[in-house]
Amino acid sequence: MNKTVNFEDLEVGFDIPAAIGMDESEIQTPCLILDLDALESNIRKMGDFAKAHGMRHRVHGKMHKSVDVAKLQERLGGSIGVCCQKVSEAEVFARGGITDILVSNQVRDPAKLDRLARLPNFGARIIVCVDDIDNISDLSAAASRHGTELEVFIEIDCGAGRCGVTTTPAVIEIAKAVQAAPNLKFTGIQAYQGAMQHLDTYEARKEKLDVAIAMVEDAVAGLKAEGIECELVSGGGTGSYYFESNSGVYNELQCGSYAFMDADYGRILDQNGQRIDQGEWENALFILTSIMSHAKADKAICDAGLKAQSVDSGLPFVFGRDDVEYLKCSDEHGVIGDPDGVLKVNDKLRLVPGHCDPTCNVHDWYVGVRGGKVEALWPVSARGKAY
Amino acid sequence: MNKTVNFEDLEVGFDIPAAIGMDESEIQTPCLILDLDALESNIRKMGDFAKAHGMRHRVHGKMHKSVDVAKLQERLGGSIGVCCQKVSEAEVFARGGITDILVSNQVRDPAKLDRLARLPNFGARIIVCVDDIDNISDLSAAASRHGTELEVFIEIDCGAGRCGVTTTPAVIEIAKAVQAAPNLKFTGIQAYQGAMQHLDTYEARKEKLDVAIAMVEDAVAGLKAEGIECELVSGGGTGSYYFESNSGVYNELQCGSYAFMDADYGRILDQNGQRIDQGEWENALFILTSIMSHAKADKAICDAGLKAQSVDSGLPFVFGRDDVEYLKCSDEHGVIGDPDGVLKVNDKLRLVPGHCDPTCNVHDWYVGVRGGKVEALWPVSARGKAY
Repeated sequence: MNKTVNFEDLEVGFDIPAAIGMDESEIQTPCLILDLDALESNIRKMGDFAKAHGMRHRVHGKMHKSVDVAKLQERLGGSIGVCCQKVSEAEVFARGGITDILVSNQVRDPAKLDRLARLPNFGARIIVCVDDIDNISDLSAAASRHGTELEVFIEIDCGAGRCGVTTTPAVIEIAKAVQAAPNLKFTGIQAYQGAMQHLDTYEARKEKLDVAIAMVEDAVAGLKAEGIECELVSGGGTGSYYFESNSGVYNELQCGSYAFMDADYGRILDQNGQRIDQGEWENALFILTSIMSHAKADKAICDAGLKAQSVDSGLPFVFGRDDVEYLKCSDEHGVIGDPDGVLKVNDKLRLVPGHCDPTCNVHDWYVGVRGGKVEALWPVSARGKAY
Repeated sequence: MNKTVNFEDLEVGFDIPAAIGMDESEIQTPCLILDLDALESNIRKMGDFAKAHGMRHRVHGKMHKSVDVAKLQERLGGSIGVCCQKVSEAEVFARGGITDILVSNQVRDPAKLDRLARLPNFGARIIVCVDDIDNISDLSAAASRHGTELEVFIEIDCGAGRCGVTTTPAVIEIAKAVQAAPNLKFTGIQAYQGAMQHLDTYEARKEKLDVAIAMVEDAVAGLKAEGIECELVSGGGTGSYYFESNSGVYNELQCGSYAFMDADYGRILDQNGQRIDQGEWENALFILTSIMSHAKADKAICDAGLKAQSVDSGLPFVFGRDDVEYLKCSDEHGVIGDPDGVLKVNDKLRLVPGHCDPTCNVHDWYVGVRGGKVEALWPVSARGKAY
């Protein structure tokens, strides 16, 4: 080839999958799209619920990892700030202007302790979880080094079987150590029952939450008997928030998935036995995918595989279609069963991912759509912030 | 707080998990580390094999998504270039200076066709797969628009049940259409049998590959009878490369996982019934993780969960340890069974991920280590390049 190369031929550009104003049909796939009507409706609904029940809502930012979504939740849903699981996520939210941030996790590594202790300098209230009295001196020393104050939740393991103490005496012992430590403040209790969120029936979930509430009540009473007040008692997810809100002991929710929904949450049942994605919440998050091969009559191959989602909680389903089915997933492909051969190459489908949190974490952008047009482009601001 | 804020207190920095020269114990977790001795040994070994068998080795860049690793494979393993699955990955490799690139996949979307057709302007030979005669005119038009030449492999579905044609007449029909199309060149056949790579026994894998080889022989002979020569016949993965190399019909390999290894590949057996990660290849890729809670005596909680890996092919295992076990995975946590209570908070473990490809895709950096020190920091250059 003897062609003169033009600069614009080398300018292949960044991988922003869409542009504002573009038709949905032109969006580059695979990518995450948000149905903005559904998203706003979910956010308003949970906000109204929290307000009606006198609950603070600290939305879980680990789900969407997006400053823009967190701010929409503040604006439309009255949320008071975020929780997240990693110090590096908290940095993103603090830099983005979120002013009340809970790292709902333990921070033990020396470098991470320093990063955490710097965060109040961004103008944010910073709370961190503790489940080990040995963590107190490290947190206190880090906050002292940076001239900041860190607030502390004692984490109770109320059923997840992961982090957290399991007895009221342990809660009291750590709370007293926090109160005695320079630059730390005891603020309350973290009691999120993660393991029950995905149990199918309302009754099965209630049974588990009753146990959690009893543990929390015991801890709060035990602290009170020692003259220690809990300003905040925090927990509750998309499968349980009504239990915490009616408990009389929790005063802060930590819901995340309600805003986007996913296949795994969607299939749990509400009090009336209805799937929660068919009444309680709307599907707002989709993986937009294109058919890129249809060499077999009954199978269409789409461009969203393992690198466009996490299948830890099962495969995605094709939204709004009962004539085609997502059957199989490999690294870059999905196999769509198309028994009637209705799909054509370049057709687009909306997939509802099995599990929203780790699916969002593999993407760089949310494309917000309304009425078939692209209305918003939001970075997944804390994507990959795993530290 | 009335403290004056210093700029350095706000400078929390980027999330590069390590610095050159750092001790391995100081690396921020969770992150990917590469044992450089093991990696170099794997690369040299496959390079020697390919050379001894007269095979070109086009390493699969979709696995590591790294220009640096691809160049190491050229330098130490004599590889001739890369294959990858997406146009956006090909852009990264072309910009990075890789000069022979196969998109081992179909490209159908109009914007992607344009991006692909621009790539030869970077000085790279660009080959793309086709399994549908209707794709030829689009590819030809895109290459003509950009004044470039695109080379074409006809993809045969030799067992994966995904993309690809299944008959020799279909191969011949498409090859003739390629030959007749402006700015396209027929170069050969793509025949990767993906579905058999993870079958446990050598015999089970051989049986599947024998079928694939027969299909490819038939297609090559059919083309020859029409006066069409295949310059390249390409395929072969970490579980099959010896079959293609001894087939007499393939002349190009496409191995990826051999360089890093993972738990799912590691457990398949070689001709002698030995796991391939215990002789044939070394584990070079690990998720470095830290213990961040140990509130229960027999369970340690580590900081590598679903957002630090993909568990589609099973959980990771703890490298070099039989006293502790990775039992369970949630979004940001792993539960490590520690029956003897040997682990302490901030202890680090090396995890071998279940599946390397989608695990690498959630990380931004490879930290190369040798002798307990950090020697290299390589970006996962094509991470998230899903378009």
